Amino acid sequence: MNPFSFKILHKSKRSQARVGRLITPHGVIDTPNFVAVGTNGTIKALDNRAVEEIGLQLMFCNTYHLLLQPGTPVVKQAGGLHDFINRKLPIITDSGGFQVFSLAYGSVASELKSQGTKKTEQAVLKINEEGVTFRSYRDGRKILLTPESSVQAQKDLGADIIIPFDELPPFHIADQELEKALERTHRWEKRSIEEHLKSPQGQAMYAVIHGGIDDRLRAKSCATLAEMPFDGFSIGGSLGKTKQQMVDMLKSLTPRIPQEKPTHLLGIGDLASIEQCIPLGIDTFDSSYPTRAARHGMLLSRKGHLKINKGENRTDFGSIDPECNCSTCRSFSRAYLHHLFKAREMTYMSLATLHNLSYIIDLMQRYRQAILDDQI
Amino acid sequence: MNPFSFKILHKSKRSQARVGRLITPHGVIDTPNFVAVGTNGTIKALDNRAVEEIGLQLMFCNTYHLLLQPGTPVVKQAGGLHDFINRKLPIITDSGGFQVFSLAYGSVASELKSQGTKKTEQAVLKINEEGVTFRSYRDGRKILLTPESSVQAQKDLGADIIIPFDELPPFHIADQELEKALERTHRWEKRSIEEHLKSPQGQAMYAVIHGGIDDRLRAKSCATLAEMPFDGFSIGGSLGKTKQQMVDMLKSLTPRIPQEKPTHLLGIGDLASIEQCIPLGIDTFDSSYPTRAARHGMLLSRKGHLKINKGENRTDFGSIDPECNCSTCRSFSRAYLHHLFKAREMTYMSLATLHNLSYIIDLMQRYRQAILDDQI
Repeated sequence: MNPFSFKILHKSKRSQARVGRLITPHGVIDTPNFVAVGTNGTIKALDNRAVEEIGLQLMFCNTYHLLLQPGTPVVKQAGGLHDFINRKLPIITDSGGFQVFSLAYGSVASELKSQGTKKTEQAVLKINEEGVTFRSYRDGRKILLTPESSVQAQKDLGADIIIPFDELPPFHIADQELEKALERTHRWEKRSIEEHLKSPQGQAMYAVIHGGIDDRLRAKSCATLAEMPFDGFSIGGSLGKTKQQMVDMLKSLTPRIPQEKPTHLLGIGDLASIEQCIPLGIDTFDSSYPTRAARHGMLLSRKGHLKINKGENRTDFGSIDPECNCSTCRSFSRAYLHHLFKAREMTYMSLATLHNLSYIIDLMQRYRQAILDDQI
Repeated sequence: MNPFSFKILHKSKRSQARVGRLITPHGVIDTPNFVAVGTNGTIKALDNRAVEEIGLQLMFCNTYHLLLQPGTPVVKQAGGLHDFINRKLPIITDSGGFQVFSLAYGSVASELKSQGTKKTEQAVLKINEEGVTFRSYRDGRKILLTPESSVQAQKDLGADIIIPFDELPPFHIADQELEKALERTHRWEKRSIEEHLKSPQGQAMYAVIHGGIDDRLRAKSCATLAEMPFDGFSIGGSLGKTKQQMVDMLKSLTPRIPQEKPTHLLGIGDLASIEQCIPLGIDTFDSSYPTRAARHGMLLSRKGHLKINKGENRTDFGSIDPECNCSTCRSFSRAYLHHLFKAREMTYMSLATLHNLSYIIDLMQRYRQAILDDQI
């Protein structure tokens, strides 16, 4: 019996939004849900016991980082990522491809600033049909990442959900080049699922749909990958320069994704995007937005978001959000958090991260209720 | 009735060590005990709820820092430091003098490197009988700190134990100068206790015994201050260049301190010093040693201390200290902490700090038991 399953509990009468339940070897993920990013096996500034206590059902770890430090064999020796980092709830890992290609081409943002290809020669040594050879920023050794080696690394890590190795083409790629990259990505994803199915270990694998903001290529990618035995679909590659481009692309794409399978939007989780994408049928979102925002002094609240460094917080002895029940809000005032932020105390980072994550976990619960009530 | 009291429960038959109990408005402090330093109203990387959970009975906050940020009027408006930082257990504050004079003269260590007076012109503007005028490093405003204003600041903060304003003469001071500084310190301490007793607010005030490493001056300081109505004694000023100088000085001094009063050793709390000073009758020690050591990768353990960055920890899946019952040791392995340290994750800081503090709290409990058993 497959330990992974997805059940849709309710479809909204007003949109493609749905409430579902993912069952994994490490427990349930209620959808739609937010997936916090714990790159190195920890959410920044928050230990995994605290993260479990606030009810984060799925955590995203990065294979690229764990491959370089501590190395996936160490994690395997520990009994897998769950044991190594002491997380009992579900984990998803990516393939490492995104980071390797980001090294090569930079992010969309840095590309738009014409910094796109600067790092190539330093870090990425070769890209061919086999895979990508790059140099470790930690110790300078050469590493060949292929669909097979990425999947093997993800087997060592043992996350509940894993991702096939894909190519992230630069945003400013010629149309013909993009289509060629797409075909190679499909070949790599096919090799990935084949490698995975040799020893499934109870893991689920989500395809990565590519095609940039070209509706035709997205549809083609979706159709190609839907032929393969993936457990779910994620949407990756370039999502455009603006939120509107992304939403337009998703409006065309999501109806084509097999409806009974879970759908994940890679790397997007700001509140505005979540609000716009849930009605399009996206089930899970991963993003470092709430945790990074917390560290930079932006605290989420039902009554408008808060810049904690602002002077008005200096003598505000109320909590960040009076409706929030997190331990930061139950224990500490805006004035104290303002003070800790000004004094550059790390304690601020932990308290703020805990609040923002709690906020977004609760927000997703409210979205699920709204879908059940057919309000979305 | 004085809400502050000190009761000696047992005196060792082998030394001056004693087990006691300090009663304060915010609860009991069992002695001998360790006082962790939370300069800005937080232990670095550990929130006050976690600090209370591990049973830290007394926390040391710095008036100088809180005066500059957020300002003691803000803390007063919050209802005092306990409310502002949400700590229910006892707090001790210093007078601010130590930091102001450190700005002027630098630490003993920096003096020994001939860097002693470099900062004077920048930060400390004037030292005279009235007090010290210095410039805030935060906003450049001039601040006059006097015995009276220091005590008033400590009234705003409302700690359970407060410290009179004293002068910290430079280590390399001529003997005659030291004696003159000592006399002024006594005048300042007298003004401090007088200011304090105008509105005691349930606070206790500990004298600061000065005199450098000159036994005669220490005896004189002790005798002078014993004439004033202090609730306890702390030992401040220069404690010498080496641990041996400090211990020699304390051997001569501690028998002269009124035995029924609690004795605190200011700024010393490394494990070797604690071991040597408990038999001399020191009741409490404050130091940033265990928390700073944690952040720098030094973890305390019953089986020898651990440098977490060492390669041998990479695949050591045991806890830091198998006999430690702290939540870090119960939840996370050396290998994971090694990984987090290497990956420069803030989570490491919190987990390591929690362990080292738990370790030293437990260590003090073991010392108390050893004294009760007359083994020390």
